[in-house]
Amino acid sequence: MRLSTIRWHDGSTSAAVEQDDTLVLLSAPNVGDLISRTGWRERAGEALRDTSAERVAKSTADYAAALRPGKVICCGLNYRDHIAETGRETPEYPTLFAKFADALTGPSDTIVVTGSNRVDWEAELALVVGIRAHRISPAEARTAILGYTVANDVSMRDWQARTLQWFQGKAWDASTPLGPAIVTGDEFDPARGATIECAINDEVVQSSTTDQLLFDAPFLLSYVSQFTTLQPGDLILTGTPSGVGLGREPQRWLRDGDVLTTRIAGIGELRNTVRITASGTPGRTPFRDAGEGDTP
Amino acid sequence: MRLSTIRWHDGSTSAAVEQDDTLVLLSAPNVGDLISRTGWRERAGEALRDTSAERVAKSTADYAAALRPGKVICCGLNYRDHIAETGRETPEYPTLFAKFADALTGPSDTIVVTGSNRVDWEAELALVVGIRAHRISPAEARTAILGYTVANDVSMRDWQARTLQWFQGKAWDASTPLGPAIVTGDEFDPARGATIECAINDEVVQSSTTDQLLFDAPFLLSYVSQFTTLQPGDLILTGTPSGVGLGREPQRWLRDGDVLTTRIAGIGELRNTVRITASGTPGRTPFRDAGEGDTP
Repeated sequence: MRLSTIRWHDGSTSAAVEQDDTLVLLSAPNVGDLISRTGWRERAGEALRDTSAERVAKSTADYAAALRPGKVICCGLNYRDHIAETGRETPEYPTLFAKFADALTGPSDTIVVTGSNRVDWEAELALVVGIRAHRISPAEARTAILGYTVANDVSMRDWQARTLQWFQGKAWDASTPLGPAIVTGDEFDPARGATIECAINDEVVQSSTTDQLLFDAPFLLSYVSQFTTLQPGDLILTGTPSGVGLGREPQRWLRDGDVLTTRIAGIGELRNTVRITASGTPGRTPFRDAGEGDTP
Repeated sequence: MRLSTIRWHDGSTSAAVEQDDTLVLLSAPNVGDLISRTGWRERAGEALRDTSAERVAKSTADYAAALRPGKVICCGLNYRDHIAETGRETPEYPTLFAKFADALTGPSDTIVVTGSNRVDWEAELALVVGIRAHRISPAEARTAILGYTVANDVSMRDWQARTLQWFQGKAWDASTPLGPAIVTGDEFDPARGATIECAINDEVVQSSTTDQLLFDAPFLLSYVSQFTTLQPGDLILTGTPSGVGLGREPQRWLRDGDVLTTRIAGIGELRNTVRITASGTPGRTPFRDAGEGDTP
């Protein structure tokens, strides 16, 4: 199944399940709410068989971020090809950091960045947790994964480089597009090597396959569950392949008006226009726009 | 005012406001819920004046973590005395990382750690956000702070040191005690230099004053609000002074059964017994307890 959250003109949202060129509406405000209730697969299956169920054309749907997770956990350096390219040693443990649900945005939404002039892209496969997971093994984690979707961990490299911790370059509101659909694990297996790509104005800048993950999806879920309990709808971003702007020579950053496309074969595509306004000058106070300069 | 969340035998909770040796119950399930509604100060004031309002003795109350915030953001190296002691340069920007609300626990709760044998302490002043804050200045942030409370950013140093990002050593469920009360900003000002202390079995291991903060509370709130919108009840942990186990020679870690006391003069005291079970062997698979050994 392919699950989405669509947005109405009044700002409300509905969960939906894809059927050919249409989205069949489900009685839940979003996918996160849907999958946290038992019996959701049966109800979605019934809706697919119900010819009188309300449907909207995919082409006209306004997609929201499918989920508003309690936890969004991201893995750093995790693509074998990227690790080999950088000449680093293979890490023994996954590098993890967190962001909040406010960082997510819809698959077609404009990404507005105010106060950074080093905005970079990171195409990523995201796994969606399907059941409560507390100290589970990688084998158990296989059945705890609901499915997969596409994300772009858009990163403000100037802020990220200010300190050793990446959080402040990664957790900007409405900067991480997600979607368009969550494809359930019975229909998508990253170990089969789906193509993952990122393009700027249709120029491909990242291209790899999802079987290049060093720490695969079940391992990541199992690992995180050792210290924090995951709930249905929680999200793990699995890392990005080579080709980000930071790693290029010369370095390259997104410019105001660029169209950022992120796609994984078998899941779908994000297509986000990036608006970069009032970008800060590195080393200056971050409070320029607020008319303040009282750094400590 | 001094606000708390207390726990009943059935697992439900109530917000309360302190009056001498009693807690006056308020019609909200917790402090986070209370302060997100307008007019809460007036209602709490009325409850304090209402001699027939339900009260419980402080001595018998079971305190929960006062809040379940949408965002918990922590600042690293931030005490001037600690920075001087380590010989590092004064940082230009605050080092920030995130944890989730699940990491919080009550001021008297037992902290159970499974799978780490380098459990360390970090006494911290925590600021509580009072109003929605989006790209505000430090001056505006002064009025956006609801108040302050005590936290201990208990850290699993073995996990923290596995990679460059601290998150996996910091975000363990129910490992960060918080409370016992949130003291509103009109009654507590960290700039006046309140004593902050941490003790293990009553031996003081950290002692400093809150005027040693390099990035003070309004600055931190303002800084974070440049990239993510904060809401009432969100929490910023402001960093720890010198004296943590990691920085000692020889290094020292919490042991099973230790009583960890964390106090800030004018706010109150956390007192948590630490239970360390099935601690992992460094470098071994983290899945020992799950009966698995399939690290990648």
